[in-house]
Amino acid sequence: MSKIITLTTDFGLADEYVGVMKGVVLSRAPQAQIVDLTHSIPHQGVRRAAYIIEPAYKYFPEGTLHVLVVDPGVGTNRRIILVNLENQLFLAPDNGILTLILEQKKFVANEVTCEHLFLKPTSHTFHGRDIFAPVAAAMVNGMPPNEMGPQIEPSELTILDLPKAKIDTVSNSITGEVAYIDHFGNLITNIHRDAFSKLFSDEKQKILISVKDQTIRKVQNSYASVNPGYIVAVFGSRDYLEIGINQANASQTLDISINDRVLIQDNK
Amino acid sequence: MSKIITLTTDFGLADEYVGVMKGVVLSRAPQAQIVDLTHSIPHQGVRRAAYIIEPAYKYFPEGTLHVLVVDPGVGTNRRIILVNLENQLFLAPDNGILTLILEQKKFVANEVTCEHLFLKPTSHTFHGRDIFAPVAAAMVNGMPPNEMGPQIEPSELTILDLPKAKIDTVSNSITGEVAYIDHFGNLITNIHRDAFSKLFSDEKQKILISVKDQTIRKVQNSYASVNPGYIVAVFGSRDYLEIGINQANASQTLDISINDRVLIQDNK
Amino acid sequence: MSKIITLTTDFGLADEYVGVMKGVVLSRAPQAQIVDLTHSIPHQGVRRAAYIIEPAYKYFPEGTLHVLVVDPGVGTNRRIILVNLENQLFLAPDNGILTLILEQKKFVANEVTCEHLFLKPTSHTFHGRDIFAPVAAAMVNGMPPNEMGPQIEPSELTILDLPKAKIDTVSNSITGEVAYIDHFGNLITNIHRDAFSKLFSDEKQKILISVKDQTIRKVQNSYASVNPGYIVAVFGSRDYLEIGINQANASQTLDISINDRVLIQDNK
Repeated sequence: MSKIITLTTDFGLADEYVGVMKGVVLSRAPQAQIVDLTHSIPHQGVRRAAYIIEPAYKYFPEGTLHVLVVDPGVGTNRRIILVNLENQLFLAPDNGILTLILEQKKFVANEVTCEHLFLKPTSHTFHGRDIFAPVAAAMVNGMPPNEMGPQIEPSELTILDLPKAKIDTVSNSITGEVAYIDHFGNLITNIHRDAFSKLFSDEKQKILISVKDQTIRKVQNSYASVNPGYIVAVFGSRDYLEIGINQANASQTLDISINDRVLIQDNK
Repeated sequence: MSKIITLTTDFGLADEYVGVMKGVVLSRAPQAQIVDLTHSIPHQGVRRAAYIIEPAYKYFPEGTLHVLVVDPGVGTNRRIILVNLENQLFLAPDNGILTLILEQKKFVANEVTCEHLFLKPTSHTFHGRDIFAPVAAAMVNGMPPNEMGPQIEPSELTILDLPKAKIDTVSNSITGEVAYIDHFGNLITNIHRDAFSKLFSDEKQKILISVKDQTIRKVQNSYASVNPGYIVAVFGSRDYLEIGINQANASQTLDISINDRVLIQDNK
Repeated sequence: MSKIITLTTDFGLADEYVGVMKGVVLSRAPQAQIVDLTHSIPHQGVRRAAYIIEPAYKYFPEGTLHVLVVDPGVGTNRRIILVNLENQLFLAPDNGILTLILEQKKFVANEVTCEHLFLKPTSHTFHGRDIFAPVAAAMVNGMPPNEMGPQIEPSELTILDLPKAKIDTVSNSITGEVAYIDHFGNLITNIHRDAFSKLFSDEKQKILISVKDQTIRKVQNSYASVNPGYIVAVFGSRDYLEIGINQANASQTLDISINDRVLIQDNK
C-alpha cells in the first residue's frame, strides 16, 4: 500500500461531506495523503465517474487506493467492493462505476463486509463517512484486502453497457459517439487511437470526420494547430479522439451533446 | 494539539485567498495538515457556516483546530475568539458562527489579542491571511490557548437566534422548518431524531409530515427506499429529519426554501 | 527548495486533470506538498492568472515552486520557462503569465528543455501531466534549475502589455482602471497605494473617486466602514485600490467590468 487515497464523489464542495470523510480517514490513519480527483460528478452520474477514473488511476503510485462514492443505491443492499488491479486498489459501490477499468485487465475483487470497521451507528444515507472512509483508513494502515470480506468472481460484478465504437472494414469507416464533455467543452469520443490506426495508416491520410453538421478533414497534433475559433480533431491525452474548438467551448458553440454520433470515413 | 487545521470560509475557489492563507500557515508551521471543509459559504453566510461546522467537527481527531473565516465585520472591532470544546479547537470571529456548537457542551473561550503574531502591516480587509493564519500556525506549533489573549465568559459570546423545532405534547405534533439545503437539494430540517422519538415511539408509526403542499406518511431508512422521483423523509447523517426526492433536487422540484415550515403530526 | 508546490490552472475541478497532475508529482516526489492556488482561471485567461499569482507567491516559504498551467499555446513551440526570483520559483509557459512578477525584481530564467524528464509518449494536449508535473517533481527532488535547460535573457521573455495607472501632477489626478474582479464582486483597480500617496498626502484628504456613474469621496479602512449596501473604496489586501459594496457584489450591482476607467481627483 501507498499512503495515497484518491477521492471521486458527487458530493460537491458546498457542504461538509468531503471534509468529514477526510476527518474520519485522518482520525484513523493520520499518515494518509488524500488527493481529490473530483467531487463535481453530476448527482449520481455513475457513467461520468467511470470516464473520470479510467484515464486517471494509472498516473498514481502503485498501491494507491481510489475511493469512489457515486452511489445512487446507498442504503439499499447493493454491494461495496474492493478491487485490486495490478496493485491499484479501488473501493466503490458495485454499480458499474469501474466498468472501463475492469474491462482492461485481470483483477481480484472482494465484497466489503467487515462491519467491525464501520462507524456506529452506521447511517443509511452517508456511507462515504461511515463505511468508505474507515475502510480506506484500514487499508492505508495495512489491512489486507482479503480481510475486508469474501472474494467474488469478476463475472459477478456490475458492468455498465457503455457504447463502443464500431469499425467497419468494408466501408472503411468508424462509427462512435461523444462519450464525455470536459470542463473546456471539448468532446471526448469513444474512438481510441488504436481503432483509428487499424483503418487509417497515417494520421495525415485523407479522412472525413463528421459530427452533427460539422466535418473535419484531418487529425491534428494539438488544439493550437488551428487558429482560435476553428474546429479541430486531436487524439487527446486519454488517447481517444477529441473534437474541440481552439480557445472556445465546442459543446456549447456547436450544440453537441453526449451520445451524438461521430463518424470517420475514408475520403479518397 | 493535532497538526490538523480545517478551513471554512466564504472566499470561493476562484481567487488566491485560500491558497494564500495556506501559504502563511505553512511558512510558519510546515508540519500543518490543512483540510478544506468548504470555501463555498455564500458571501457572509454566517448562519450557513454554523450549520456546516456542527455536524463536521466531531469527525476530526482530538486537538484539531477548526478555522472559520466568514466575517462580515472584518475591519471593525468585532472580536476574534478561540474556543476549546472537549479538545476540539475553534478559531473564528465572534459573530455567532459557532452557535450550534456552543449550545451543546462546556467550553473555554479566549479572545485573540496576541498582536505580536499577526502579519504586519495588518490589513483591515483580509484577516484570514494576516490574523487567522498566523494564529493557527502558532497553535499547531504548540502555543497554548491562554497565551492568545484573555479568557472570556461563555455568556459574553455572540449567539445567533436560530429557529428551534417546537414539540406540542397536547396535539402530538412537532413544528420545525427547513434550516439548510445541501448540494443535492435535500431539505435538512431543524427536527432532531431525539425530538421525534419523544412523541413517536416507532418510526413505523402512522404520521403525517407536511411541507408546503407536500405530505409524507412515513420516515424511511434511506433515500433509495422509494423509487427515483418520489419524495422521501429520512433521518439523515446529521440526525436531523431530511426531506428529499430520490435521485433529484427536492428544493428545486418542490420550490421549497430555507425557513419553510415542516409539520409532523400523529396520523391515527 | 521547499517541498511545497502551488498549482494555478484553468483546468476546473470537474475533470480528472488536476488530480492526475498530482498523481504524477507524487509518483516521483512522494514528499511533495501540493497547495491549490486556483483551478478556476477562465479558460486560457493568462491575464487573470497574472493577477492571481502576483499577490500570492510572496506568502509562501522560500524555495516554493509555483506551477502555472494556463496555456493556450500548448502543443505549439511556445517555450516553457523556469524563473527564480529571490528564491521563489515559477514554472510556466512563456506567455506573459508572470508579467506582474517579472516587472518587480531581478530574476534568473531558464528554458525547460530537459526532455528526459517528460512522460513518454508526451502528449501535445496535456503538458500539465506530461511536462510540468514531472519537472516539478524533479525540482522538489533537488534538481537545480540550470539542469532544466539553457539560461535565457530576462529581456527575451514574453510580457503582457497590462494597463498601468497614470499619475497627472498638473491636474492632480490618477487615471486607472478595473484590473480584476474577485469572487465577492469587488473591483480591484490598478491604482497602487504608493501612486496614491504621491499625490494625496493623507487618505482623509478630500478626493473624488469616479467609476462609471458612481462617485466616492473618501478611502476607508475596511468594507465594513460603511453600512451594508453602500459603496466603499479601500486599499485592499493587495495594496491596490478596491471599490466594493459592503456585503454585496459591486460588479453586478453597478454593472462595472474589467477595463472600466477609475479616476481619482483632488476635490478641494
